[in-house]
Amino acid sequence: MVGEMDSDKQDVPFFTKLFTLAQILGILSIVLIGVWGGVFRGGFAWTSDPALQFNWHPFLMVFGMVFLYANGALIYRGFRFEKKKKLKLLHMLTMLGAFVCSVVGLVAVFDSHNYAKPNPIPNMYSLHSWMGLATVLLFCFQWVSGLVTFLLPGLRPSVRSAYLPVHQFFGLFIFVSGIATALVGITEKTFFTMMKTYSNLPPEAILINFSGITLILFGAIVVYLATNPKFRRLTTEDEVLLTDTVLE
Amino acid sequence: MVGEMDSDKQDVPFFTKLFTLAQILGILSIVLIGVWGGVFRGGFAWTSDPALQFNWHPFLMVFGMVFLYANGALIYRGFRFEKKKKLKLLHMLTMLGAFVCSVVGLVAVFDSHNYAKPNPIPNMYSLHSWMGLATVLLFCFQWVSGLVTFLLPGLRPSVRSAYLPVHQFFGLFIFVSGIATALVGITEKTFFTMMKTYSNLPPEAILINFSGITLILFGAIVVYLATNPKFRRLTTEDEVLLTDTVLE
Repeated sequence: MVGEMDSDKQDVPFFTKLFTLAQILGILSIVLIGVWGGVFRGGFAWTSDPALQFNWHPFLMVFGMVFLYANGALIYRGFRFEKKKKLKLLHMLTMLGAFVCSVVGLVAVFDSHNYAKPNPIPNMYSLHSWMGLATVLLFCFQWVSGLVTFLLPGLRPSVRSAYLPVHQFFGLFIFVSGIATALVGITEKTFFTMMKTYSNLPPEAILINFSGITLILFGAIVVYLATNPKFRRLTTEDEVLLTDTVLE
Repeated sequence: MVGEMDSDKQDVPFFTKLFTLAQILGILSIVLIGVWGGVFRGGFAWTSDPALQFNWHPFLMVFGMVFLYANGALIYRGFRFEKKKKLKLLHMLTMLGAFVCSVVGLVAVFDSHNYAKPNPIPNMYSLHSWMGLATVLLFCFQWVSGLVTFLLPGLRPSVRSAYLPVHQFFGLFIFVSGIATALVGITEKTFFTMMKTYSNLPPEAILINFSGITLILFGAIVVYLATNPKFRRLTTEDEVLLTDTVLE
């Protein structure tokens, strides 16, 4: 098994198995976070009910910054036998979708604080909020830099290939930060709502803890798939340099 | 700058700068966590005062699982012009130190719960506790596997080189999980102690948030130093395979 992984040729069946496992864990995370808001926390609403509007926040952040983001990052590997131009466009569009979800998720939390009854809830004081805002701002900067460098014409190939490892490193840093922020946020919300009952481990608490564990497993597999050079696109050396493989 | 980083030769001055910055951030994290316990949370004690015994927990976990662990991981890079045998031994011993600190840190939190007055505090129910225990158990398994595979005689070089990327991947996974667990734990403790005042951002809250940010920056730089192939040991190809470079 380990020997297999160490061999030089691309291991497509192994990639497919891990990729499938990652998708299952990713979808499971979304379902668990959805059940948390939908079943245990009263369901979803928009400005009509600020407390229920909040529930969109964890759901959209996990769907956007974790699940869609991971799929955007893995596009060069999941579809590595496709044309590079097509993959670049798909990468950019998936990341745009991830970003839009995140922004709507941020609107949800700010609205739920600002319109809370009887008094507004303060914003941007917790470690979670600092981590989250920094991560989304970095993501925004990363998306624009990627667009300008790799998709718009004009920059020399030498500039593109020099920026690529930076783009890849920050890409994974933003992803891991997003998951860490989610874990901190899950804990924060749990202490707001279940301070007295968390330690009895009622069903909601178990669901919360498992949603954290699935997020971590999802993150670990995605980072593995994104960094293992065996799973990179098969193409000319130059193309590999311009499209693929983090951290090497 | 990026062009420099992308060149083929080892960039010792750049490594030294980043390595120094990492040490500063690591020491800053320890100081901030120490000031949190020592100044804002009443100081340190052992079983004589369970509430103060708790304060050893964040301090020892950050010192062991984050700071010492990172230095253990970076030994092959920080001292990459030394003999490999010496580095292996130093790596193993630093990691043993990190493990011992972590175990004492765990004793501190279990004691502080079990001997709390008037009633014991429950153990092992929160996401933080699940993440933390899993991380320390993985670390224990990783240390023993590393010892058996790389330091004790008997295993074939092919087994060693097949296990190396696994050891490296899990090594960084454990490190990042340790930091994520710290961030979740910091948030948990903050909600236990400052639920009502956190949002006013008193000095303690600002110190807490900054300790989280320094941990993240420290983690990011350490992972970068540990994965960038430019900083690997200069040695024969076989030795490189057996000692160095995660994820490639």
